[in-house]
Amino acid sequence: MSAAQREDERQPPVEPNFEPLTPLNFLERARRVHADRIAVQDGEVSFTYARWYERAKRLGQFLLDQGVQRGDRVGVLAWNGEMSLLSHYAVPMIGAQLVQMNVRLSPDEIIYIVGHSSMRLLLSSPDLALSGSLDEACRQVIIDADLDAAVAATEPLADPVRVSDELSAISINYTSGTTGRPKGVVYHHRGAYLNALAMALDHGLDSSSTYLWTLPMFHCNGWCFPWATIAVGARNIAIPKVDPAVVWQLLSEGEVTHLCGAPTVLNMLAESPDARPLDQKVRLLTAGAAPTPTIIGRMESLGFEVDHVYGLTETYGPFTVNVESPQVTPDQRLLQRSRQGDANLTAGHVDVWDPEGRPVPADGATLGEIVMRGNVVMTEYLHDTEATEKAFRDGWFHSGDLGVKYPNGQVELRDRLKDLVISGGENISTVEVERALASHPDVLEAAVVARRDDHWGEVPVAFVSLREGSKATGDDLIEHCREHLARFKCPRDVIFQELPKSSTGKILKTQLRNVANATPTSSS
Amino acid sequence: MSAAQREDERQPPVEPNFEPLTPLNFLERARRVHADRIAVQDGEVSFTYARWYERAKRLGQFLLDQGVQRGDRVGVLAWNGEMSLLSHYAVPMIGAQLVQMNVRLSPDEIIYIVGHSSMRLLLSSPDLALSGSLDEACRQVIIDADLDAAVAATEPLADPVRVSDELSAISINYTSGTTGRPKGVVYHHRGAYLNALAMALDHGLDSSSTYLWTLPMFHCNGWCFPWATIAVGARNIAIPKVDPAVVWQLLSEGEVTHLCGAPTVLNMLAESPDARPLDQKVRLLTAGAAPTPTIIGRMESLGFEVDHVYGLTETYGPFTVNVESPQVTPDQRLLQRSRQGDANLTAGHVDVWDPEGRPVPADGATLGEIVMRGNVVMTEYLHDTEATEKAFRDGWFHSGDLGVKYPNGQVELRDRLKDLVISGGENISTVEVERALASHPDVLEAAVVARRDDHWGEVPVAFVSLREGSKATGDDLIEHCREHLARFKCPRDVIFQELPKSSTGKILKTQLRNVANATPTSSS
Repeated sequence: MSAAQREDERQPPVEPNFEPLTPLNFLERARRVHADRIAVQDGEVSFTYARWYERAKRLGQFLLDQGVQRGDRVGVLAWNGEMSLLSHYAVPMIGAQLVQMNVRLSPDEIIYIVGHSSMRLLLSSPDLALSGSLDEACRQVIIDADLDAAVAATEPLADPVRVSDELSAISINYTSGTTGRPKGVVYHHRGAYLNALAMALDHGLDSSSTYLWTLPMFHCNGWCFPWATIAVGARNIAIPKVDPAVVWQLLSEGEVTHLCGAPTVLNMLAESPDARPLDQKVRLLTAGAAPTPTIIGRMESLGFEVDHVYGLTETYGPFTVNVESPQVTPDQRLLQRSRQGDANLTAGHVDVWDPEGRPVPADGATLGEIVMRGNVVMTEYLHDTEATEKAFRDGWFHSGDLGVKYPNGQVELRDRLKDLVISGGENISTVEVERALASHPDVLEAAVVARRDDHWGEVPVAFVSLREGSKATGDDLIEHCREHLARFKCPRDVIFQELPKSSTGKILKTQLRNVANATPTSSS
Repeated sequence: MSAAQREDERQPPVEPNFEPLTPLNFLERARRVHADRIAVQDGEVSFTYARWYERAKRLGQFLLDQGVQRGDRVGVLAWNGEMSLLSHYAVPMIGAQLVQMNVRLSPDEIIYIVGHSSMRLLLSSPDLALSGSLDEACRQVIIDADLDAAVAATEPLADPVRVSDELSAISINYTSGTTGRPKGVVYHHRGAYLNALAMALDHGLDSSSTYLWTLPMFHCNGWCFPWATIAVGARNIAIPKVDPAVVWQLLSEGEVTHLCGAPTVLNMLAESPDARPLDQKVRLLTAGAAPTPTIIGRMESLGFEVDHVYGLTETYGPFTVNVESPQVTPDQRLLQRSRQGDANLTAGHVDVWDPEGRPVPADGATLGEIVMRGNVVMTEYLHDTEATEKAFRDGWFHSGDLGVKYPNGQVELRDRLKDLVISGGENISTVEVERALASHPDVLEAAVVARRDDHWGEVPVAFVSLREGSKATGDDLIEHCREHLARFKCPRDVIFQELPKSSTGKILKTQLRNVANATPTSSS
């Protein structure tokens, strides 16, 4: 890098009583305060905080040597691993922005994101590398033994960037794009810092914690855990993906204290032949879809403490947290635990609004759109002022999720706006119907979607996968639903099949709607 | 309040993705999330979070009814109690600033502070009330049953202020003024918010914690614990002052999990006839003077987990924290625990500088001035630009404390600049000599000061109070020091007497220097 460039990037003067909030400070402090503790462990390799900070500076310098400059964007298309975690520090340390991408995107989607974000460099796992078709402006570097050796041989960055504006971007996370092209959600240093502190405080992370990476780091920057774990000096254990046998093996070794996962991951773990009651205390954060009381209860019976959180890509991952009331009665407990809760300690405010922008009554029944505001709401959609303004109308972020509000301020997710079934003019929350189905002992997973109907407009149709060896019929399940729900909410039809899912565990309802509309009614 | 005034104080518009950081948000959230938990307990009275939030709004409205306006200052001159704690929310909730005052100040000093801060209203404990001599602009209200009834009868504030600038003042804490008139140290909402989060995270506070008020709330706003405890939904137990019998009674009941105190408070507790090993885990934060390895060891042997922190009025109380290394050897442990440590998670940076403003070598030996910078450094000294600029020269806050820096970045306090003894051109750290004295089994407390000396310039003189029934002589103690220290550092004289202390447990060395200079040498 030339002297002229360095001059442009000169450091701002220090102030005695103000410093921008940035998660970079977490590692800069932890490398001294927690110098001898293990920061990250990946297979046979592990790094102490002191060494890992050096390593972040080496990767930072390596990126500079590849031509990455301040303000550039660096992509990561990789399975969970030490290098992905490291990029959460090495990239912002040189003033660049991190773009972690979903490993299950199509080459076409990846090329769209590379272009849309003007990506300068892409770090790829070997099996995910793109061949030849990348934008010429973007270099590709493979995360493998060669890169590892190159980084180890690079001198550490002499002068990490000092962030001068806490509202400047630290990362961009692309939405899954189920309703159009993926949108680039911009996170800033302040939001990442604050949500990381909330994750640490709300879920009891400290320097004795060991965090197991069962959540993809490309999912909202791993719900801010790459920053939260380093803030407190915890140990990270990186595994490339969720293999239940591997997870249970690590759990049985007794060191893991925290992990995160969508409800489908919880299901995978609970259904694994290796599942067995835990000997130690493990806190399990779940979000990404609404967990049913059934799956919360199953995980608790295995010994997990389930922390239920809720948010979106636009809210740095978790925005709300379900805090248990000391007054809840045993029979109400799982139902209350399945609510999405109230804003976490640093997030801000959550509410439920009717279409005219008025808060709905806090009656646990009136449906409205979940809205949020605060420091843990995105800066904007990159290069999309129109979508940003639409999402931010009336001073709040509009989630597109439907929910209800309880008298104590907790919100409960009922549906995505687009997933709601409207039958004979009545709203049917598919989450509510799925919850009733999941409470049947034979049901492993269930998803409900709308089928077009000449008479009712739409009717609910259920897709169900059963537990191995169980024999419930569609009529059995509809009868079970009638014991728990008003008749008009019960599925008109039950289709047995495995449920298609995105890499982050979201059930792909668009696919199921197509199937539902192509299948004639088989029952009732 | 008139409509015109209300118009002036109209609320700023909400933004979807930015909100000023303020501890007011902690209570506003806790009153829902922790609604049914106990927020504070004072004697026979206790309040749930839901009720206590209403009570804060009632006290806020009461203050408005007394003529307090936005930007005004409200003083509190009171023993620890529920009303003092409440003022940390009720006062900023109406946009006013809190001035907690040391209960042991003289009437003259109080009148100075009332005038200097243009105080509008003073809440006083009955036995501390000032008679007749207050500035006419300042109303006095007595914290008693009448006030309690008046607050209970006031309608809750309809519209708590929304803080529009996180750098605006939340409180003013006056320094003890041992070197001149007390200075008014201005804290802002952002700093209070961030240091409260650090206290909660570094010391493991959560909604199951019970915090016992053995630290005066007027001491740097109780080291930010009025905000930290409410942030996490913990229970506060307020007691008016430290009576060791009462503290041990509460500890024996098994609910207390956290308390704070200066080393002298630790001594009081350890020496109490009621002292007995704890049955439960209790974390004990100490600061305010350098704790010796001896007192840390004694508290640990009673079962306390000692958290050693360090800071000044100018740094919102605790700025550093001593985090134990997993690699420390048993024989080094107490020595390392008695270091002041590194900056806490949100505070910023601490360093040690030579008189030319260069960092001293990190060798654990070279003395320099401890300097800090970050979000948890005061805004300014109120109405004192000259002192502010002097303290903030070169972009860092100058503490006036002398210390050394270790290779791992930890700092160790060696002396106040003004307390250092310079003998024959050599610096003698009085903290180091006091530590050597405290390691003698007969010594309860020790303080070392300079006596003028024709030959050496200054020589160290020790003031010692002995444990009951013990018989060590001055010569015994000097001999003991010679086993641990270079000869020139050992006290030239030992004077046995009780040590005079400020209300916050600081030994009044100015008084001792006068005694030392008026006393002829009695030994050596």
